[in-house]
Amino acid sequence: MLADFMARLPEGPVNRDEQPEALRALIGDGPLPDSGSDTAILLESAASLLFEHSLFNAHPRFFGYVTSSPAPIGVLGDFLASAVNANVGAWRLSPVATEIESQTIRWLAELVGMPHGTGGVLVSGGNVANIVALLAARRAAADWDLRKTGVNGAGASPLRVYATQEVHTWLQKAVDVAGLGADSIHVIPTDEQQRMDTGALAQAIEHDRAKGERPMLVVATAGTVSTGAIDPLPAIVDLCRKTGVWLHVDGCYGGVAACVPDAPADLKALAQADSLAIDPHKWLYAPLEAGALLVREPERLRDAFAYHPPYYHFGQEVTNYFDFGLQNSRGFRALKVWLALRQVGRAGYVKLIGDDIRLSQWLATQVEAHDELELFTRNLSITTFRYVPRDLRDKRDADTDAYLNTLNQELLDRSQRSGEAFVSNAVVGGRYALRPCIVNFHTTEADLRALIETLVKHGRQVDQALRARSAD
Amino acid sequence: MLADFMARLPEGPVNRDEQPEALRALIGDGPLPDSGSDTAILLESAASLLFEHSLFNAHPRFFGYVTSSPAPIGVLGDFLASAVNANVGAWRLSPVATEIESQTIRWLAELVGMPHGTGGVLVSGGNVANIVALLAARRAAADWDLRKTGVNGAGASPLRVYATQEVHTWLQKAVDVAGLGADSIHVIPTDEQQRMDTGALAQAIEHDRAKGERPMLVVATAGTVSTGAIDPLPAIVDLCRKTGVWLHVDGCYGGVAACVPDAPADLKALAQADSLAIDPHKWLYAPLEAGALLVREPERLRDAFAYHPPYYHFGQEVTNYFDFGLQNSRGFRALKVWLALRQVGRAGYVKLIGDDIRLSQWLATQVEAHDELELFTRNLSITTFRYVPRDLRDKRDADTDAYLNTLNQELLDRSQRSGEAFVSNAVVGGRYALRPCIVNFHTTEADLRALIETLVKHGRQVDQALRARSAD
Repeated sequence: MLADFMARLPEGPVNRDEQPEALRALIGDGPLPDSGSDTAILLESAASLLFEHSLFNAHPRFFGYVTSSPAPIGVLGDFLASAVNANVGAWRLSPVATEIESQTIRWLAELVGMPHGTGGVLVSGGNVANIVALLAARRAAADWDLRKTGVNGAGASPLRVYATQEVHTWLQKAVDVAGLGADSIHVIPTDEQQRMDTGALAQAIEHDRAKGERPMLVVATAGTVSTGAIDPLPAIVDLCRKTGVWLHVDGCYGGVAACVPDAPADLKALAQADSLAIDPHKWLYAPLEAGALLVREPERLRDAFAYHPPYYHFGQEVTNYFDFGLQNSRGFRALKVWLALRQVGRAGYVKLIGDDIRLSQWLATQVEAHDELELFTRNLSITTFRYVPRDLRDKRDADTDAYLNTLNQELLDRSQRSGEAFVSNAVVGGRYALRPCIVNFHTTEADLRALIETLVKHGRQVDQALRARSAD
Repeated sequence: MLADFMARLPEGPVNRDEQPEALRALIGDGPLPDSGSDTAILLESAASLLFEHSLFNAHPRFFGYVTSSPAPIGVLGDFLASAVNANVGAWRLSPVATEIESQTIRWLAELVGMPHGTGGVLVSGGNVANIVALLAARRAAADWDLRKTGVNGAGASPLRVYATQEVHTWLQKAVDVAGLGADSIHVIPTDEQQRMDTGALAQAIEHDRAKGERPMLVVATAGTVSTGAIDPLPAIVDLCRKTGVWLHVDGCYGGVAACVPDAPADLKALAQADSLAIDPHKWLYAPLEAGALLVREPERLRDAFAYHPPYYHFGQEVTNYFDFGLQNSRGFRALKVWLALRQVGRAGYVKLIGDDIRLSQWLATQVEAHDELELFTRNLSITTFRYVPRDLRDKRDADTDAYLNTLNQELLDRSQRSGEAFVSNAVVGGRYALRPCIVNFHTTEADLRALIETLVKHGRQVDQALRARSAD
């Protein structure tokens, strides 16, 4: 059934125009059934429900958010992991699974160029990877007994985090969780390409230190979610080394693209960060959930989370992953990542990721050449642009921008509901943008041609409808 | 292959005597391979590695920790979820999966008797369920702008948490993560059955309030990990209502046993908690990972974690689960729980959980009747006892206890390594105890007879060896 589902997917819609009411009627709102059901019927009906009422990120014309098509070997990996049910919280509970997770982490570090000795932990996804990094940095920055007395213990100084507004919302959640509150974020301005202003960062750190505050963490981004922008990492690395502030790079989207030989130097410098979050369930095509936190000095994770000294088994130090993060019992999410790394190797990922970038660049050139589309940005595998009716092409006033924002918002909604292709949006300099992100090994140029056709078709229709509405 | 693995499991060992060195040699320590591998060979070798080098919690003689045998329908559920790859972070990304998760949460609340309107979220497991509850209680207790200014914002009072020493280590991690530090825990004494002293709790809350501190959370346990003890929940519920302090019940192990009609009243009172953590990957036999947090007033989770107002789709309020906890992208772990609830229904779980409890009680009577075993505790499906050589049976001195601690520790280690059966340990009143916990629908009385034989056999051998050693 699953093989058939995967094979037929490209013929069907990417998305269904789902109504909450109708879906709830389908599932029912009855109480927990008292008696059981026939297993085969249950599985078939569950599969049908999912096959008919999901947003299909495995579809070749899915370009939404940063959600990838799942690699079939990862799906089989999850099946195998679930059947064996290894609990990768402690070595004794899962000897071989723990060793495979350790190897996976070493390989991920190698893939992006981090130094030998880098460690880390696999987690549910980017949010938790980033939160765990922030907690490790918090512990490392405190020279009082933070784990015993809290962020406000005797001798505590106010802790400060530095980031631009382009950082994903995880950061607000992380400082809140950590007890620091959103006010602990010192917002650093960006240039016109959404990149951190390093001079302003240097001043901010100096200024806060002079006030008696304690700079604990700089958060840079290697591929922002909205436009794929990469902060000027070499300069930020230098500054963090000089000032002794922990540098965390959120590379959840773009980090793994550092493996591509002609990746920009700004991206490759992520290898020098103190910690790096990458998401195998994004650009390594793992099915959900698989996030990863890589830490240059892995004992920093132990300092922040362990309650026991390192564990030895038959004289060998072994890893208990519950010492490295929030979880105690842990599933074997490493398996799907490890299998995929072995199935295609480094060369395979260089090609797959490189293909997504090339397709995205090709899309950008098509957009540039199209007289009804206006290109905004092209970074990594994200292209942003908008539909502009021919007669508005040369208009540059606020009313036109407002009209185009409305038009593109409605066009996005219609195109999503059509099921022909799925893109999400960004806001670039106040302008509403269409934003295909390609982390999809099923996509071809033909799919992108179809995407442009779909978007232009809906653009024309919405434009007509809006003009007719305003003429009424 | 997986069906065959499951069918043959009972014939093989529960556990292998794994050496880190040997395992590492098997996996290799080479760099990330540059080129790929044949998929079929890769999958077969990965399966062999796991089938030959894991601790098998699906084995009928696995009684370690609180790790259950995975239900086959849950394994298939994970396979299906992974293939469709629904991202249950937001309704638009996963319409049907989000609705199924909501129904699963309603059904879990019904199963344990929580009131209509209870909400919650599925998470990776007990640690995160409990941490999320603590963060929600922290937000609810603060009358200053905690999310903006942190635990130490203007107008803040020191926040206090109440719990006994029997609470699982998650609590230390949670208060540390939350920025409160371990000192924020006010440790409440227990009675001789490891249950919270409610009088002492009342005094502690009053005392701290008088000092100007803010009691934010009482943590009670419904089934401690070591002995399955249940705190006197009815009295704690009353006290928390009276004092206005949030009551969180950690029911990760024992919570779902509240569905059994003749469950003790102390357990059933968990339905009146403000929040309850239960672990479907424990006693609902879901494969890892599946934890659940149930919250009587679900908007408390939104208050603590959301950055947006409630979301409407076609005029209907729908749930975006990223507003309810730490994660942003989220896998569809609800599917395996939902499928199992439907496969066996409430009646099925009442029988399966009831069977585990009856088997454990039967084991306790066998232990009691055995002249080389000494019973310590029996609660829910955990029995604790130790091996005592016949000639030491009536000795009650410190030297004997020290000897028996050594003996039982070595006996446990040998029995685990033998692969004949797997139990873990507890410490009960300073005495080292063997601690079979039965959350295993494969287990029969015959397996428990075999367990007793194994433990007694190793007990005799270790006793002989220890006496020979001390005679040398």
